[in-house]
Amino acid sequence: MRSWERIIAAFKRFPGIGPKQAERMALHLLRAPAAESDEFLDAAREARSQIRSCGRCFNYTDREVCSICSDPARDHGLLCVVEDPQDVGAVERTRSFRGVYHVLHGRLSPLDGIGPERLRVAELVERVKKPGAAIREIVLATDADTEGEATALYLAQLLRGPSVKMTRIAQGVPLGGDLDYIDERTLGQAVTCRREL
Amino acid sequence: MRSWERIIAAFKRFPGIGPKQAERMALHLLRAPAAESDEFLDAAREARSQIRSCGRCFNYTDREVCSICSDPARDHGLLCVVEDPQDVGAVERTRSFRGVYHVLHGRLSPLDGIGPERLRVAELVERVKKPGAAIREIVLATDADTEGEATALYLAQLLRGPSVKMTRIAQGVPLGGDLDYIDERTLGQAVTCRREL
Repeated sequence: MRSWERIIAAFKRFPGIGPKQAERMALHLLRAPAAESDEFLDAAREARSQIRSCGRCFNYTDREVCSICSDPARDHGLLCVVEDPQDVGAVERTRSFRGVYHVLHGRLSPLDGIGPERLRVAELVERVKKPGAAIREIVLATDADTEGEATALYLAQLLRGPSVKMTRIAQGVPLGGDLDYIDERTLGQAVTCRREL
Repeated sequence: MRSWERIIAAFKRFPGIGPKQAERMALHLLRAPAAESDEFLDAAREARSQIRSCGRCFNYTDREVCSICSDPARDHGLLCVVEDPQDVGAVERTRSFRGVYHVLHGRLSPLDGIGPERLRVAELVERVKKPGAAIREIVLATDADTEGEATALYLAQLLRGPSVKMTRIAQGVPLGGDLDYIDERTLGQAVTCRREL
């Protein structure tokens, strides 16, 4: 049955969706009330046509400049660099950051052929070095895995300047973490990066 | 951002999709080349408009009567009753069944308010009892969990007749199963249902 195989194949192209989950989703699409599946199709169509990159931070938005970049109450001298749009949401939910963001849309991954030219790195450099930018601190909040670390190190070298402080998010034992169950590299980092009380 | 929250909410309504997976899927929809996301939207639209229930077995099809029901080479006297359309695919892949199917579209679940009237039970009874139906055997292939078992028992009572053999798919140790690792209820069933060699 062509239509059935076609919708399954379309769902399978999404990341993290295997053949069984694709079948479940296709079934749901067919069984849901017309209002719900129409809403889904409309939302998907609207997302494609309305959502674009913020001209400053490259997070997704439906405006020219996103709500964070255009908020005068945020600290525009404090810049947090993240890999993906979801990471902006993750940092925002902590409520412990009042600066602005820059979304790279990926991380360096030489094995996958992803170099700085595939990311929003040139735009980041331009943003930081632009006269009058007045950025005091850049927080490198890429992931704490090998590629995220490499990306942070690369950016630290690239952006270092006399008037900019480069920082990296802390690594260590997660809150509530049981030392017995934590992998040794994390625990090693936690010991190395210990701080005075 | 309204469009973004709307597409995330739409993806979250699918079964098995949590907030993080919904975000990943929405991101993929935005990042994919236009050709791919257009194909997805077209496939979803086509599925809604083209796919319907087979008039005989209630499996999904894009024809009046599905390809299995309209195949004269299948044994129309042997009827396999399953819960969902995916189960037809699962039985077909075994290549050990040459009869036809009946899809209930669910199983009895009193706690969720799902009684026989919510399933394709009346249509099954009509199909079996219809003069000239000539069904010799009904294989009850509902799931091997509590609700699937209850549904099978209910149908066995309902459909029992002098000329129809009612059977249930076998339960036991899965192929390659290590007795040490199998739950005791499955092993219990395997012992109870042991067969002579």
